[in-house]
Amino acid sequence: MAKIRDNIEKESQLIGLLLKQQQASKFRLHFLKLHQHEQAQIFVKLNSLQRKRLYRYLTSTKVAEFFNELDLEDLTADYLKEMSPRYAAAVIATMYTDNAVDMLGTATDADLKTYLKFIAPQKAVIIKKLLHYQAKTAGAIMATEFVKVTGNQTVADAMLLVKHQARQAEIIYYLYVVDHFDHLTGILTLRDLLVAPAERSIAQLMTSPVVAVKVDDDQEDVARMISDYNFVALPVTDAAEKLVGVITVDDAIDVIDEESAEDYSGLAGVDIDEQQDNPWQAALKRLPWLITLLLLGMSTATLVSHYERLVSEASILAVFISSITGTAGNAGTQSLAVAVRRLADPKADRRSIWKIILTEILTGILIGVITGVAIMLIVGWWQKNIILGLVIGLAMFAAIIVANLAGSLIPLLMSKIGVDPAVASGPFISTLSDLTSVLIYFNIAQIFLKFIMND
Amino acid sequence: MAKIRDNIEKESQLIGLLLKQQQASKFRLHFLKLHQHEQAQIFVKLNSLQRKRLYRYLTSTKVAEFFNELDLEDLTADYLKEMSPRYAAAVIATMYTDNAVDMLGTATDADLKTYLKFIAPQKAVIIKKLLHYQAKTAGAIMATEFVKVTGNQTVADAMLLVKHQARQAEIIYYLYVVDHFDHLTGILTLRDLLVAPAERSIAQLMTSPVVAVKVDDDQEDVARMISDYNFVALPVTDAAEKLVGVITVDDAIDVIDEESAEDYSGLAGVDIDEQQDNPWQAALKRLPWLITLLLLGMSTATLVSHYERLVSEASILAVFISSITGTAGNAGTQSLAVAVRRLADPKADRRSIWKIILTEILTGILIGVITGVAIMLIVGWWQKNIILGLVIGLAMFAAIIVANLAGSLIPLLMSKIGVDPAVASGPFISTLSDLTSVLIYFNIAQIFLKFIMND
Repeated sequence: MAKIRDNIEKESQLIGLLLKQQQASKFRLHFLKLHQHEQAQIFVKLNSLQRKRLYRYLTSTKVAEFFNELDLEDLTADYLKEMSPRYAAAVIATMYTDNAVDMLGTATDADLKTYLKFIAPQKAVIIKKLLHYQAKTAGAIMATEFVKVTGNQTVADAMLLVKHQARQAEIIYYLYVVDHFDHLTGILTLRDLLVAPAERSIAQLMTSPVVAVKVDDDQEDVARMISDYNFVALPVTDAAEKLVGVITVDDAIDVIDEESAEDYSGLAGVDIDEQQDNPWQAALKRLPWLITLLLLGMSTATLVSHYERLVSEASILAVFISSITGTAGNAGTQSLAVAVRRLADPKADRRSIWKIILTEILTGILIGVITGVAIMLIVGWWQKNIILGLVIGLAMFAAIIVANLAGSLIPLLMSKIGVDPAVASGPFISTLSDLTSVLIYFNIAQIFLKFIMND
Repeated sequence: MAKIRDNIEKESQLIGLLLKQQQASKFRLHFLKLHQHEQAQIFVKLNSLQRKRLYRYLTSTKVAEFFNELDLEDLTADYLKEMSPRYAAAVIATMYTDNAVDMLGTATDADLKTYLKFIAPQKAVIIKKLLHYQAKTAGAIMATEFVKVTGNQTVADAMLLVKHQARQAEIIYYLYVVDHFDHLTGILTLRDLLVAPAERSIAQLMTSPVVAVKVDDDQEDVARMISDYNFVALPVTDAAEKLVGVITVDDAIDVIDEESAEDYSGLAGVDIDEQQDNPWQAALKRLPWLITLLLLGMSTATLVSHYERLVSEASILAVFISSITGTAGNAGTQSLAVAVRRLADPKADRRSIWKIILTEILTGILIGVITGVAIMLIVGWWQKNIILGLVIGLAMFAAIIVANLAGSLIPLLMSKIGVDPAVASGPFISTLSDLTSVLIYFNIAQIFLKFIMND
């Protein structure tokens, strides 16, 4: 594994050098023998001058082939800007439509118009249509290059078609069967086709009904489906049940990665895909959350300040503030993580929402009792003050239940009002739980104050 | 999407009923028209009596086909125990070896021996070998059903071979080219084969060198590679460069899911895949972390208790404990999440480890300065006490830098000593940072004590 990485590192330096020295044919020799994914990896490390030479040394087809392998965040129209409009249009027309559309999505309207002018009308129409699908839906990530057959064709006909389309189609391992109105009626795999007698009709061979998704289905649900069914691709139909595209497993992986990075970022209150090594930019990305939470935390401080007299009378109370807020915050974070994950699970049905809450309340009570009793005994023994132990234990118990409830209710409410619950961050829950914990703690302490001091 | 789910729900109830009523042929009719993934989903919901009837009503081949679709956690030998050993062995022998091995991995040694007795010797040898690969390596997740050709064969030969092996092979979209010693020398896709002239030799057509992994490579690296290169499958070679298996993209997705769930669980300090709705079991799973953190938190309490005199003299100090510990904890969690993610990125090279630390220190300083100045102004204005503001600001500044450093250093050290940094939990970092923050806070406060009180 490390060897492959080292090799790419070496090739990358060599290729950069060859471009710098304008050695066109040597560059082509080294660059074109690499896998397209490796070409893409090296391309993104080049500077603008090197890239412009690369466009000159390679045909638009070769560029399109490795552009298909660029990561989503690198599919930017900035690269197209560096080419002549005609060359850029040729690259776009050769790329798979899903990738081309991702790239064009970042172009200005004027540039987009220019490029489309140089693209064959049928292709330009498809691209324009795809550009209109809403982000993060099946329509936005689907490709339109697939093999389409009709039920009355024979296996031999279909085989010819596959051979003919093998070079253009993004995926040839599934054949989609449509009727005269382009309605998706069946599916068969290339494997089925290979083992079938040549004269058999497709209609006899195909599987029906077909598992398909709609253009406006959420990309996460689609990715989950591909992953659950172990599909290599999944067909997409429009509102009229017409076959309009396919989503391939490599796109599904990208979606799963993107969504899991979002979940993780949400929990940590930071965009973990911050690529820049620039501390200033990193700080700018993290500060909004921190400052917001700090201000929220100031309400906790304000709250404590109301109890300042209480603290000055019984300064021992200050000792346990961070234990109680900390433990409740941790319990709330656990509960949040479980709830967010459950809500994202497509297999969980709607009834189970109340089950989540009920489970969390009961779990909170159990955890609260056990943790409360533990801290009561520890504090009672350590401070030789059983009433103080009781106060801390009770406060811990109540604070944990409230934090657990908040941890599961907040993502639930967010999902109800249509906000992705994954953005409910762990730090937010723990800062919120600081507030409630302190309120609970000092109120319980106030009740028992004279017993604490007498004891 | 929801429609598919509802349909499965309905089918599931019907199939359960048909099994209860012992309607064998009606059951077969309904069950066998479902997709194998759906069959698997319904199967796991049946009770033991229903399952035993299902084995009676279906051939071992049909059972093996949907067993291949079971989720990893459902691939348990408990199901095999419910069958006759001969039937169980037939199911295992028909399943793809990677899934069969996962299932047998949970069987007792005695049962394993019994099953293997009924399996054809060549297959039994392969299974025994696969059972010995270490968990979470390429060897443990690879399948051994693939299409193997030699360079001197022609396209027509290879096509015949593919047709012949299409039913058994887990993946037929890649053909692996080997020499006389079974060394992997090249690869071609079924697509290449389809468009090539029949008399062309494989050696002329194949791509070489092949991107492959080793049996003992980490499954996460392998999955990343499949995802980066957009492969449908990746060949696996042993120490002698012999081709021994393939890993398919569906297994890669499972690995990516598993690893991202682990990352998320680590950050939250809870196993988020806790399936049970039983609050008692959920509590038992979460308590170890909470209690450990509580005990760690008690050191913070002990620390504060040393400053009890300080607090009783200046009770205002208690007001800001949770603001400082909270903000530093949040900053530490952000830093942790970024570091864990970076360390998991296979593209990051080793030099960048020091870059991560340096970036985190600088980011910490920037965040610390900005947050510190903000809180200084807020507190100074609110409490009309600029010295108090200065104390809080300074403490916040120092506490954030320490928390940021801990957040990036701890996962880094873990990865150095070979522990998965993903288990470094957010709650752990914030509890640890509570301790350092309080220490910093009270020490700074002590220095400025008389100014605070005078002001």
